[in-house]
Amino acid sequence: MAENTDQLVLSDDPLHPANLIPELCRNFYQLGWVTGTGGGHLHTRRVYIAPSGVQKERMLPIHIFVLPYPQAEPSPHTDRVFLRRPTQNLKESACTPLFWNAFDLRDAGSCIHTHSQHAVMATLLWPGATFTISHQMIKGVRVGGVARTLSYLDTLVVPIIENTPNEEDLKDSMAEAMKKYPDAAGILVRRHGVYVWGPDWEKAKTQAECLDYLFEIGVKMKHAGLETVLNT
Amino acid sequence: MAENTDQLVLSDDPLHPANLIPELCRNFYQLGWVTGTGGGHLHTRRVYIAPSGVQKERMLPIHIFVLPYPQAEPSPHTDRVFLRRPTQNLKESACTPLFWNAFDLRDAGSCIHTHSQHAVMATLLWPGATFTISHQMIKGVRVGGVARTLSYLDTLVVPIIENTPNEEDLKDSMAEAMKKYPDAAGILVRRHGVYVWGPDWEKAKTQAECLDYLFEIGVKMKHAGLETVLNT
Amino acid sequence: MAENTDQLVLSDDPLHPANLIPELCRNFYQLGWVTGTGGGHLHTRRVYIAPSGVQKERMLPIHIFVLPYPQAEPSPHTDRVFLRRPTQNLKESACTPLFWNAFDLRDAGSCIHTHSQHAVMATLLWPGATFTISHQMIKGVRVGGVARTLSYLDTLVVPIIENTPNEEDLKDSMAEAMKKYPDAAGILVRRHGVYVWGPDWEKAKTQAECLDYLFEIGVKMKHAGLETVLNT
Amino acid sequence: MAENTDQLVLSDDPLHPANLIPELCRNFYQLGWVTGTGGGHLHTRRVYIAPSGVQKERMLPIHIFVLPYPQAEPSPHTDRVFLRRPTQNLKESACTPLFWNAFDLRDAGSCIHTHSQHAVMATLLWPGATFTISHQMIKGVRVGGVARTLSYLDTLVVPIIENTPNEEDLKDSMAEAMKKYPDAAGILVRRHGVYVWGPDWEKAKTQAECLDYLFEIGVKMKHAGLETVLNT
Repeated sequence: MAENTDQLVLSDDPLHPANLIPELCRNFYQLGWVTGTGGGHLHTRRVYIAPSGVQKERMLPIHIFVLPYPQAEPSPHTDRVFLRRPTQNLKESACTPLFWNAFDLRDAGSCIHTHSQHAVMATLLWPGATFTISHQMIKGVRVGGVARTLSYLDTLVVPIIENTPNEEDLKDSMAEAMKKYPDAAGILVRRHGVYVWGPDWEKAKTQAECLDYLFEIGVKMKHAGLETVLNT
Repeated sequence: MAENTDQLVLSDDPLHPANLIPELCRNFYQLGWVTGTGGGHLHTRRVYIAPSGVQKERMLPIHIFVLPYPQAEPSPHTDRVFLRRPTQNLKESACTPLFWNAFDLRDAGSCIHTHSQHAVMATLLWPGATFTISHQMIKGVRVGGVARTLSYLDTLVVPIIENTPNEEDLKDSMAEAMKKYPDAAGILVRRHGVYVWGPDWEKAKTQAECLDYLFEIGVKMKHAGLETVLNT
Repeated sequence: MAENTDQLVLSDDPLHPANLIPELCRNFYQLGWVTGTGGGHLHTRRVYIAPSGVQKERMLPIHIFVLPYPQAEPSPHTDRVFLRRPTQNLKESACTPLFWNAFDLRDAGSCIHTHSQHAVMATLLWPGATFTISHQMIKGVRVGGVARTLSYLDTLVVPIIENTPNEEDLKDSMAEAMKKYPDAAGILVRRHGVYVWGPDWEKAKTQAECLDYLFEIGVKMKHAGLETVLNT
Repeated sequence: MAENTDQLVLSDDPLHPANLIPELCRNFYQLGWVTGTGGGHLHTRRVYIAPSGVQKERMLPIHIFVLPYPQAEPSPHTDRVFLRRPTQNLKESACTPLFWNAFDLRDAGSCIHTHSQHAVMATLLWPGATFTISHQMIKGVRVGGVARTLSYLDTLVVPIIENTPNEEDLKDSMAEAMKKYPDAAGILVRRHGVYVWGPDWEKAKTQAECLDYLFEIGVKMKHAGLETVLNT
């Protein structure tokens, strides 16, 4: 099947999702989000997904999976449907069901997952259910990840869910947190990383960078003994 | 209008402001000044301004705004005047009025704004009105950002102003601090970042790097319990 | 001899070991594993070894040593056998006998050595015989470096051996630790660095990155006063 | 004069000093040794010196100064002799007399100066006359910067001299420290940076990287409350 579907991932357009995903993964590799970065992009009723377990800075368009959208989650009795699978013996990212949360619950066009150490340290230094920070450069962050941007006077709240051994099993608790915190621009997973999304790949990437910046400065403030939320 | 004014931003000269601004933004992105970097460059009575909200490492010359100089600040009754606006639905950097401070009050030819975490941490660890450091490599910093360089025996003083929800609203307090500290080479904005300038883009960039180096080493000294100003 | 054996290291294939080793060394240089990185790759009964004492980011295929495999360790009465030596006055990596441990004891196809500061700090902050961490992103690490990947519920254990003045003299204690900890994916050397391996160069590189990520987050957790192993 | 002497700095050979110095400065810029890096290289009785005050990552061969060697230090009655000066209004690096120390006192072929923050922090956390460390990866460091490499069992000692407002005025105290510590591979300058040298540019660069690695790990050990010299 794969031979006949290569045209789904071969394009001269540098902004085609199958070209963008490898480029962004190289980009994130250079930012130090070394391991485990992944992404899913929804474009004209198709979802493009990075493979699992490849070296992210060496990913190629031919490694990309393509799935139809919408699509119900596979059950014990159904398989996931693909429009295209790579010829190599690759597996789609284990985050696939979690990207679906962003598409289904937020109308996102793109979802990014990283294991950034700033995100992980934030989940360790904020042992409760949320990461919170105020009076920092939060004005690039969008309400719910997709709507208007926050104001300097808002407090950023990012829910933290507990990790599970299998990434797929995070789907329900992530969805629950997204419903409980409809304004949240991302979901932290304790001792694991973060899921971020946006209306398109550019805004998803910007959201990922803005949130990572805030996790980093929040962790630095904790280490310096500073309060991260001001009551004014 | 924009179609007719593209020649204002299309040039084979790599040192043309419309080529330089995107290159410098890529440069700063790689230095880790990831989000929110912006710059305005004054060149032969024209001001070239980076757009707001684009991915700074992917900015192109056609994204650049061009304004005439001098130009009075727009009021409720007047609009800002442009020589050229990008065709895309972009907005000029919210820092535009603050760049004008550097042009008007210091005769600067270039002004750079970053959200560097070293700058932000400096404003948190120096809770007063100024960041001060002495007996460090301050000799690259220029008096007022544009005149002779400091000596190793001088003490560097950078005013810190309080942030406001809208970047434009910083204009008056920034101007006030620039007048109160005429020798200051930059203005820190608490919990936000820094504005730095120079007689031309090369010197503005060098000033930005020198000050960032000093914010970084100052923060490290604070963490190590060391005094940053020596009384000799 | 060398002139006749250049074909052993000259190939148009970017994945040929003699092209890969220099590329990976540049890669590691950029990741900040600046000094002392080395690697040995076993491919079709030949071992390709980086030279010692060259600038790792400027290494060329013609600098690579080629040795037959299997080969007994040289003794006072025998010399090491080479299929190819560089014409320059270079010496093979002092780690050569240690790479052999990975080939002989783990059937590894590739072994990487770094002086990463995260690895060195881990050996200083874990003064005992092992580095241990749990409930982190350890699921990229393979049992014994070559078999199935670990689960989030496993505890990662990396033995730490004591350093010796000559790298060759680590061979026996490294082999002993590999036998005592058959599941270990790497061996830390106190105040020195780490040895990591995998079934092929891609997986060895991934193992090196995963372990380095865990040394880094482990060191950060120690500094923050957090336990790195949870008893659940 | 300069027009006639351009052939001194124009060469197709990437290893010509006038090509190497700009390349190394770009390299050091990317390593984060951002500001104030400089270098002098002695090659066939000529010294090639980087200019002062240019953006180090944008330096070009035509910016390089060429001086004859040997040459006595200029006095109030003599000027420095140049074989070639850049046409631009540039000044030779203020470190020029200090590079001469390495050439005259150590027979070095290359000398590198950086303002690395690891070096500066080392001079702040070691308030005495020397930086010392043992039982770390010091075996890349050469005795006196130019002779045999140290052993893991040696203790590295790097003298620290006090800074002066003018870089030239460090010449005598640097020479004095080099004579008092003939085995030292570099000289730290308190609150300023480090001078490192080697028999040729490749070894000088390696010495600079090895020492910087040791300053960095030494500073981390101090922060972690660990002794940096072991008495065994």
